[in-house]
Amino acid sequence: MAKPNNPIDNLERSMHEPKRLAILSVVAAESDGVSFGELKEACDLTDGNLNRHLKVLEEEKIVRLTKTTGEGRARTVVIMTAAGRKKFLAYLDSLEAALRQAAQSAGKPISLQSSPGLSPEHA
Amino acid sequence: MAKPNNPIDNLERSMHEPKRLAILSVVAAESDGVSFGELKEACDLTDGNLNRHLKVLEEEKIVRLTKTTGEGRARTVVIMTAAGRKKFLAYLDSLEAALRQAAQSAGKPISLQSSPGLSPEHA
Repeated sequence: MAKPNNPIDNLERSMHEPKRLAILSVVAAESDGVSFGELKEACDLTDGNLNRHLKVLEEEKIVRLTKTTGEGRARTVVIMTAAGRKKFLAYLDSLEAALRQAAQSAGKPISLQSSPGLSPEHA
Repeated sequence: MAKPNNPIDNLERSMHEPKRLAILSVVAAESDGVSFGELKEACDLTDGNLNRHLKVLEEEKIVRLTKTTGEGRARTVVIMTAAGRKKFLAYLDSLEAALRQAAQSAGKPISLQSSPGLSPEHA
């Protein structure tokens, strides 16, 4: 019986929570950051829920929030930190390993290729 | 900006929790079920934690527990239900879609192939 706990135990809980994974997927794509309002809409979250998730990600230094107070009302922008990007890429590697292992256990046709050349070159 | 919430919102929380994913990965591989003791060891869990996770999975009818009282002390065996296997395979499909989307957003070299022919033939 295979011990599947290794890759799965590497799954960072701060990023594994589905809504936080959604948030990070949006933020990772925009190096200039994403406004609170856009993020809220993209992830279908309330102000309160988005705030709570951002607090966790900010405490882990995965994202940082900047406030711009130009014309009109203040605007909060969420930016992925360099360390956060590195952590996110490592998380995705762990997730891929966990998925591959789970699929194999379930006798599910594997559609994943092994990825020996995978490196976080965009980090 | 892509809306990544669709596949991610399909992630069943009952199976997404890392330790429950580990439990299911072990149980899915053994059609005759896995004893509580083996499962505890394979997933590196305490009795209390394994019990709590199994309760969630049992309430969702993903696994069922049977007690055998033969010679010696009672033995609890954890078996994945047919419905549970179906749910688990569907969860793995959602997880794969979420992973592919997140990796693409992060500019991570994709090592996943699209899987048009994927079907739960082992369900």
